[in-house]
Amino acid sequence: MITSTCLSINEENHLTIGGIDTTKLAAKYGTPLYVLDEDTIRANCRLYTESMNRFYDGNGLILYASKALCNTALCKIVASENMGVDVVSGGELYTAHKAGVPMDKVYFHGNNKTADELELALSLGVGRFIVDNRDELLLLNSLCEKMGKKASILFRVTPGIDAHTHDFIMTGQIDCKFGVVLETGDAMDIIRLASTLENVTVVGVHCHIGSQIFDLDPFCEAAKVMVNFMGDVKDTLGLTLTELNLGGGFGICYTEADDPIPYDKYMEAVSKVVKETTAKRGLPLPKILMEPGRSIVGSAGITLYTVGSVKPIPDVRNYLAVDGGMGDNPRYMLYEAEYEFLLANRAGDEKNEVYTIAGKCCESGDLLGEHIALPKAKPGDVLAVLATGAYNYSMASNYNRIPRPAMVMTSGGKERVVVKRETYEDVIKNDCE
Amino acid sequence: MITSTCLSINEENHLTIGGIDTTKLAAKYGTPLYVLDEDTIRANCRLYTESMNRFYDGNGLILYASKALCNTALCKIVASENMGVDVVSGGELYTAHKAGVPMDKVYFHGNNKTADELELALSLGVGRFIVDNRDELLLLNSLCEKMGKKASILFRVTPGIDAHTHDFIMTGQIDCKFGVVLETGDAMDIIRLASTLENVTVVGVHCHIGSQIFDLDPFCEAAKVMVNFMGDVKDTLGLTLTELNLGGGFGICYTEADDPIPYDKYMEAVSKVVKETTAKRGLPLPKILMEPGRSIVGSAGITLYTVGSVKPIPDVRNYLAVDGGMGDNPRYMLYEAEYEFLLANRAGDEKNEVYTIAGKCCESGDLLGEHIALPKAKPGDVLAVLATGAYNYSMASNYNRIPRPAMVMTSGGKERVVVKRETYEDVIKNDCE
Repeated sequence: MITSTCLSINEENHLTIGGIDTTKLAAKYGTPLYVLDEDTIRANCRLYTESMNRFYDGNGLILYASKALCNTALCKIVASENMGVDVVSGGELYTAHKAGVPMDKVYFHGNNKTADELELALSLGVGRFIVDNRDELLLLNSLCEKMGKKASILFRVTPGIDAHTHDFIMTGQIDCKFGVVLETGDAMDIIRLASTLENVTVVGVHCHIGSQIFDLDPFCEAAKVMVNFMGDVKDTLGLTLTELNLGGGFGICYTEADDPIPYDKYMEAVSKVVKETTAKRGLPLPKILMEPGRSIVGSAGITLYTVGSVKPIPDVRNYLAVDGGMGDNPRYMLYEAEYEFLLANRAGDEKNEVYTIAGKCCESGDLLGEHIALPKAKPGDVLAVLATGAYNYSMASNYNRIPRPAMVMTSGGKERVVVKRETYEDVIKNDCE
Repeated sequence: MITSTCLSINEENHLTIGGIDTTKLAAKYGTPLYVLDEDTIRANCRLYTESMNRFYDGNGLILYASKALCNTALCKIVASENMGVDVVSGGELYTAHKAGVPMDKVYFHGNNKTADELELALSLGVGRFIVDNRDELLLLNSLCEKMGKKASILFRVTPGIDAHTHDFIMTGQIDCKFGVVLETGDAMDIIRLASTLENVTVVGVHCHIGSQIFDLDPFCEAAKVMVNFMGDVKDTLGLTLTELNLGGGFGICYTEADDPIPYDKYMEAVSKVVKETTAKRGLPLPKILMEPGRSIVGSAGITLYTVGSVKPIPDVRNYLAVDGGMGDNPRYMLYEAEYEFLLANRAGDEKNEVYTIAGKCCESGDLLGEHIALPKAKPGDVLAVLATGAYNYSMASNYNRIPRPAMVMTSGGKERVVVKRETYEDVIKNDCE
């Protein structure tokens, strides 16, 4: 099974990405190597941006959730696709700034923004702050006063939707480090407080109901809850909120068990609910924000490794060790996340062996997958792991002081390096005596 | 409870490390901040090195397992304590080299060393290679031939000891990505193969039975199994191995539930077993290697954070958010690892509230601990997490593009920066267009 349309197998039986032979990329740039297809990323962006035009008259903005994968090249790409960028830290903000993303299209998230980060954001002119809690609200207001700035804010609200159980109750979801709770009245209280502060203007509300969701219903339900809350805010405080940020969480295909919804269906379904609910409540149509991250880049990326050793332990299992691991992809260790694997240099061969894929870190748990069917492998083979575009590079560490991989982007049949491979000198550069 | 003798509370009710007020360190260097006490690290080193002299006539070498925490300063400290360094990658090797560690005291571990790493090690003159498997053995031998070098090697052997269950059977332990299995005959086979190769000399065997072990018995049992295997090697192949590397795994105190054995007791117990077993088997006493990592640096280190927000969710829990998290300490997310916490600026106050400690990463699971008793906290308080010297900085990432913290070392009542704080510029330095 191949998880992305940018992948294929050529006449040499090699895996290709964006039409380029992955074994040649591995040879030219070394391994481990992240490879992403820009054309796929742009196509994903357009599924969202075009759906905003088609189903909601363009009255909104798609924000790329850069925590999925943040670097200068990605920020430039999404900005050129008329998207904004959702940042969750000073580092992501700095990257977007350096990439030239218009600051009015940058939305600053995070459950614990520091004073330094808020000051940086205010000085750069960030478009919106998604305020998480009362402490942050007061800090932001006082920093604005100190700096002579005004901030437009949304509040992160926990609407009591648990997307994963499809059980639309609040018990699970309100136990969350993010945001203010709707059901307890905290969300209304904080908006009331904000409306008394001089340096902030409440323009909207935000929610994010989970990750890797394969169902439209929870998104529709969340939209309904949020619009009704906007109605309550108007009724209670006389305040008309103009922005509704519905977050992200749109599922992608990691393995054949995953069946993602075409991304434009989200906007179609949600816009219908928003239109109906605003009409019922007598509200103007709000500007809608959506924040896809994983679904923009996840399936557009792969990781290439070189097989170093194959170790059969009779009656136990066969270990296949590669030259990367938890340092460049901690998702199996963190979540037992599943991926599709294949041998890039014999991509179409029958998968008649079963391996445990071990990384090279000095830790027993450093695995990339278990019970993985592959052709019989040998040292020197190139192992490809599919759908690694999101939350791999972004979560990478230098554990064992292993330098982080390079990242290559393919587009129109050509490739370029978008993140240079770390050197040993990079790894020790902040060491002092 | 305070997990290390380097920590105390001063007359201002502030936590001190190495006699220095941690709130002053937080103010001077910013947070998050790793702080380690060099005097404690040196005392830990001496517990091991002196026990090697006392109980085994100094016929061995203590190797610092640098994966626990690797930087130039640490390598210099352990080298000056007459220890060697255990490295598991080219990056750790490079660090030890730059720190001036004598290369004959460097032992190169790892289940999947790459050709580039082996070439670097050969060119630098690394003392010993701990070879993991057959593929690596053949690769190393051929690289030696190409480079005109000879390599002294040990094999990593899985002795069938499961230290954690205290159930000395092999089923669990042989299912491991590391090493060659003793019981199946693989270990003997690979030594036989190595003895036919021209460019490698087998000098010994290595085992590592686990981590965070609080019992002497499994170490003694492993030593016995390994010496008996050395006897079998002599009987079968006529080869006298001269080095026995017993690895590490010595438990440290994270919370009051942990009751570590004084580190010199390991050497005392193991040397007795080695002496008895070699006598029985008619073998000369081997040189013993031990590889403590966590137990050298773990309890010598703390992390300081600033509290950003406190969020009570009635009938659910109280969240306390700090300015770091899974990026600088992923151990709670990875293993639900438990730590001791206290407010550094009110260190002796009664702990009459219970918090969930949340990091600032944009991920629900980004927590540092749950059910943590603390005094009532407010924004601006300094939170100290104890015993973070090992596997915190070494596993740190730039997730959310958050720069990694600085590290300060205290010694003799003074402090110095040993790792500079990353800047935003550092974070984006390898980005291309």
